[in-house]
Amino acid sequence: MTGTITHREWTAPRERLYLFDTTLRDGQQTQGVQFQTPEKIRIAKALDDLGIDYIEGGWPGANPTDSEFFAAPPQTRATLTAFGMTKRAGRSAENDEVLAGVLNANTPAVCLVGKTHDFHVTTALGIELEDNLDNISRSIAHIVAQGREALFDAEHFFDGYKSNPEYALNCLRAAYEAGARWIVLCDTNGGSLPGEVGRITGLVIDAGIPGNRLGIHTHDDTGNAVANSLAAIDAGARQVQGTLNGLGERCGNANLVSLIPTLLMKEPYCSRFDTGVSLDGLKSLTRVSRLLDDILNRVPQKSAPYVGASAFAHKAGLHASAILKDPTTYEHVEPGTVGNARVIPMSNQAGQSNLRRRLAEAGFEVAPGNPALGRILDRIKEQESAGYSYDTAQASFELIARQELGGVTDFFSVDWYRVVIARRLTGSGVEHSSEASVQVRVGDAALRLHAFGSDSLGRDSGPVSALYSALVQGLSPYRSSIEDMRLVDFRVRIIGAGTEAVTRVIIDSVDRSGNSWSTVGVSANIIDASFDALLDAINWKLAHDGAGVAAGSTAVPDAAPV
Amino acid sequence: MTGTITHREWTAPRERLYLFDTTLRDGQQTQGVQFQTPEKIRIAKALDDLGIDYIEGGWPGANPTDSEFFAAPPQTRATLTAFGMTKRAGRSAENDEVLAGVLNANTPAVCLVGKTHDFHVTTALGIELEDNLDNISRSIAHIVAQGREALFDAEHFFDGYKSNPEYALNCLRAAYEAGARWIVLCDTNGGSLPGEVGRITGLVIDAGIPGNRLGIHTHDDTGNAVANSLAAIDAGARQVQGTLNGLGERCGNANLVSLIPTLLMKEPYCSRFDTGVSLDGLKSLTRVSRLLDDILNRVPQKSAPYVGASAFAHKAGLHASAILKDPTTYEHVEPGTVGNARVIPMSNQAGQSNLRRRLAEAGFEVAPGNPALGRILDRIKEQESAGYSYDTAQASFELIARQELGGVTDFFSVDWYRVVIARRLTGSGVEHSSEASVQVRVGDAALRLHAFGSDSLGRDSGPVSALYSALVQGLSPYRSSIEDMRLVDFRVRIIGAGTEAVTRVIIDSVDRSGNSWSTVGVSANIIDASFDALLDAINWKLAHDGAGVAAGSTAVPDAAPV
Repeated sequence: MTGTITHREWTAPRERLYLFDTTLRDGQQTQGVQFQTPEKIRIAKALDDLGIDYIEGGWPGANPTDSEFFAAPPQTRATLTAFGMTKRAGRSAENDEVLAGVLNANTPAVCLVGKTHDFHVTTALGIELEDNLDNISRSIAHIVAQGREALFDAEHFFDGYKSNPEYALNCLRAAYEAGARWIVLCDTNGGSLPGEVGRITGLVIDAGIPGNRLGIHTHDDTGNAVANSLAAIDAGARQVQGTLNGLGERCGNANLVSLIPTLLMKEPYCSRFDTGVSLDGLKSLTRVSRLLDDILNRVPQKSAPYVGASAFAHKAGLHASAILKDPTTYEHVEPGTVGNARVIPMSNQAGQSNLRRRLAEAGFEVAPGNPALGRILDRIKEQESAGYSYDTAQASFELIARQELGGVTDFFSVDWYRVVIARRLTGSGVEHSSEASVQVRVGDAALRLHAFGSDSLGRDSGPVSALYSALVQGLSPYRSSIEDMRLVDFRVRIIGAGTEAVTRVIIDSVDRSGNSWSTVGVSANIIDASFDALLDAINWKLAHDGAGVAAGSTAVPDAAPV
Repeated sequence: MTGTITHREWTAPRERLYLFDTTLRDGQQTQGVQFQTPEKIRIAKALDDLGIDYIEGGWPGANPTDSEFFAAPPQTRATLTAFGMTKRAGRSAENDEVLAGVLNANTPAVCLVGKTHDFHVTTALGIELEDNLDNISRSIAHIVAQGREALFDAEHFFDGYKSNPEYALNCLRAAYEAGARWIVLCDTNGGSLPGEVGRITGLVIDAGIPGNRLGIHTHDDTGNAVANSLAAIDAGARQVQGTLNGLGERCGNANLVSLIPTLLMKEPYCSRFDTGVSLDGLKSLTRVSRLLDDILNRVPQKSAPYVGASAFAHKAGLHASAILKDPTTYEHVEPGTVGNARVIPMSNQAGQSNLRRRLAEAGFEVAPGNPALGRILDRIKEQESAGYSYDTAQASFELIARQELGGVTDFFSVDWYRVVIARRLTGSGVEHSSEASVQVRVGDAALRLHAFGSDSLGRDSGPVSALYSALVQGLSPYRSSIEDMRLVDFRVRIIGAGTEAVTRVIIDSVDRSGNSWSTVGVSANIIDASFDALLDAINWKLAHDGAGVAAGSTAVPDAAPV
C-alpha cells in the first residue's frame, strides 16, 4: 500500500522537487552536537547514496572542523554547498573576508543567509534598509560571477513578511534579480503555522518569484516543521530543506526522514513530483537514520515516524489481531518500504526472512525452515528484552548465530576478574591507577592474566583498557590472532529494560588487517557490561580467524582510553 | 510576545474549544508503557490542574489497572471518561458484557469506538454494513439513556471517508442522531495529511454534523499529528484529543503539550477560542511534561517544542549575540510563558556579553568589565581544550563562575578514593560485586566513606553508583542538603582533546524539590571522569542550597545504574 489516493489523478506533467540537507550545517547548531570531520564525511556519503540533491557541509572559515571538511571534501553526485552570510555593509563583496572564506571552499554551490525582516536589519545589524538590499544583491552577484550556483536563505522571511511585506519581498527580488538559483523562505524562529506558511508562499509567487525558484526551510518550535514544509510545497515551492532525524538548533529543523517517505508514497505528492530518492533508495532510510544516531551516541527515538522501532509496533490486542488478518488494517504504509519492520508482540513470523537476509550478509547461507532460525530469533528477542541491541553490534549478533548454527565459539572461559581503580592526592598532584586481573581457562589450563591500565610514563588509560590488555596480551594460545586487536571506540547508554534500567556498552575494535567490528555488553555495572563486550570482541576475532591465523601488518589506530 | 498576529482581528464572539486527554488510555498503548494505578491518579490530577476538559482514564474491564483506577477515581473538575467499544452484533446493548463493564465504572462520560470504514466492518469485524450502523446507534442510545455524556470515536474515519464517503457519514449520523455529544473523527492509522484532514472535516460539517459536535483524534505516523489537529480546528471541529508528550501507540498521538501553547498564544486561535487552560496555568506546562517523563523513567526529549531543555537554547554565535540585544530576534514566544527557560550554551566562540547573559540566568549579576569575566572565559577555554563541554553541563559551568566570582565552592576535599569491581563464576552462576571507598576532608575532620554498589538483594548497580552512594550517604555534615540527590542519567563519549583521546562523562542529577542539573568530568579513566562529574554534582547542590537547607519531600525517580 503506497498511501491513500485522495485527490483527482494529477494530469499535469510531473515536476522535479529538490531535497536539500543541512544536517552538517544547521544540524550542527544542535545543543551538544559537534561533528568530527570523518563523521561529516560518513554522513555526506550516506546522504549522497540516499539521493539527496544538495548537501550543505558547513560554514568554511567559521570553525576549524568545517574548514577541514571542505579542504578534502567527499566526492558526491549531490551538489556540495558551502554556507555563509551576505557581505557586511561598508565593504565590497570582493573585500569581505568572511565571504571570501566561504568562496575559497570552491564548492559548486554557495548558500548565503541574509536579513529580510526590517526589524532585524535595524536592530540586529544596525544598518539602513537600503544597505541590506545592496548587501544581498552584490553578494549574490559576486557568487554568480564566480560561476557558482547561488542560493539565498531569506532569514526570518515569514515574520518579516508579516511585519513589512513590501520590504521582505524587495529582499527576495534583490537576490532573484542578482541571479540566485534558489530563494529559500526561512521560518528561522520556527513560530509560523502551516496556514500562514502556505498563504505567504503563495503571495510570494503572486509577487513574481516563480515557485520553481523557491525553497522552504522550517523549524519545529511548534511541532509543525514537516507540515509547514508540505504547506509551502502545496503553494508552489520546489526545494525543501531539512535534516536527518530533525537535528537542528532548539527544537530542530524539518525532519527529512519524515518528509521523504510522505513525498514518495502519499498523494498528491507521489503522483506529482520526482525527487532524487528512488523507491529502492527509500529502503535504506531506517539505516541512514540510525547511522546518525550512532554517530551522535543517541538512543534512536522509538516513536519516530516511519523509521522508529515502534513505528510499526502493534500493542493493542484488537489492532494486533486485525494486523494478522490484513496489515493494511492498522498500517498506513508497508514497513519494508522504508527499511523498517513490523513488531507484533509474541510473534516472530515477520522476522525469519529478515534474519536470513542478515545472516547471508554475515556469510551464513541458511535455508528457509531451518530450525536454527527460530532459536536465533528467540535468543535475540530474549537478549533485547534484557537491554542488548544488535542494530550496530553485528559481531555479537554473529556469535549468537554461529552458536545456534553449530560453529565453534567457546575458545576460552572466564573464572573471575577483578578491577581496582584508585586516585590519590600526593604532594606533587593527583595520582591515578587502574589494574585488572583475570583468570581464564583454555581447555584444561588455567591462565592468570594481569595488566595495568597505565603505560610506563604513568599515564592511566582506565579500567576497560586494562581488562582489554590483560586478555589480549595474556591469552597466549591465541596470541597470533588477537595481539593486533585494538579498542577504538566505546559508547555507553543507560536504557530501560523491562522494569529495570541497565547500562549498555558498545565497543568498536579493529585489527591490522583492516577488519573493524562492534560488540555489545549489558549489565547494571558499567565495567561488567564492558567486560561482556570485550569477550565478544575477542571471540568474534578468534572465530573470524579460525583461531590461530597470523595477523597482517597494516597500521592500527591508537587504542581508545576508557 | 504571544505569537504573531497574521490574520484580521477576529470580530465574531469567542468560541469554546475543548481539550480531551487520552494519555491514560491511548498513551498506555505505547510499546513499553504500563502505568500503575497510583501513577494514573498522579497524571489525572496534573491534567486536571492544567485545565484539561476531559480525562480518558482507560478501558474498565479490559485490564486490571484500568478497573482499579475507575474503582477509586480521583475527584476532578475535568469530566472523567471511560473508554470502550460499541456493542457486538447479535446481542442487545443491555446484554453486551463488555459494554456493561464500561458503564459500571459510573463515569459522567463514556467514549465508544466504532467502525466507520466499510473495509474494516467486513474484514476485521466480518459483519454486514447495516449491522454496524445498528451497533453504533443502539450503543450510543444506551449510554444516553443512562444519563451519561456520550462520545463516539469514529475509527479510521478519514480512510473510511476516502473509501466510501456515504457509509462513513452514515456511521457518524447514527451516533449523532442517537444523541452523542461528540463525534470524534479519528485518523487511526496516522497516515492522513493536513490538507485532506481539513477538507474532509469541512465536508462532514457540510453534510450536517455541526462543528461544535466534532472532535479530532490524530496520530503522528507522518509527523503531522499536531498539524492535522489544527487543520480540523480550522475547518470547524471544536474538540481536540491528544496525550502528554505525544505518548501513544506506534508514533504516538497528537501532542497536547505542543498544541496547547499554540492554541493559547498564536493567531488565529488565541483571539478566537477559549479553552480550560489559562495563561497562568500554561506556566506549569514544562513541569507537567517532565512529570510524565519522570513516571515513565524517560529522559525528557531536549528538542520538544515549547518544553524541551533545548527549545530556547541558542548555540549559533550570530543568534546568541542577537538574543543579547533583543530575545524576540530568535524566539517565537517568551520561554517563561510555558515555564521553560532560555539557555545560551557556552562555547569557545562565546564572548563576554554571552557570558554575562548566561551568568545572569544562573543568578550572578556581573558588571561589564569585571576582571572575573576574563578569568572565567580563560578557564572555560582551557577546560574545553582538555575535552570538557559546558553546552549541557550548566552546573559545572556555574561552579567555575562561582569560584572566580568569590563564592564558596570548597565544601570538602578528597584525599583518595578506591573502587573494586569483581565478577566470579560460582556453582550457582555469576556473582558480581562493586564497592567504593573515599577519604574526604571537611574542615579539619577526615571522613572515611564506603558504599557497596549493590543492594541487600545482591543486585549490583555498579561502581559509579557505589561512589555516588558513598559520597551522598557519607558526607554527614551536609546530609540534609544532599541525601535526596539521585543520579538519573549518565552519558559517555570518547573524544579527541589535543593529541590525546579522553573519556567525557556527563551526569544528570535530580532532587526531591524538582531541581535537575548536569555536570561534566573528563579523564582517560572512565571511573575517574565519572568521579569528577559526581563531585561537581554534589558541590553544585551544596552551593545551590547554601549548604545545609532541608530538602523537600517530592518523589524522586529511581537512580540510574552505572
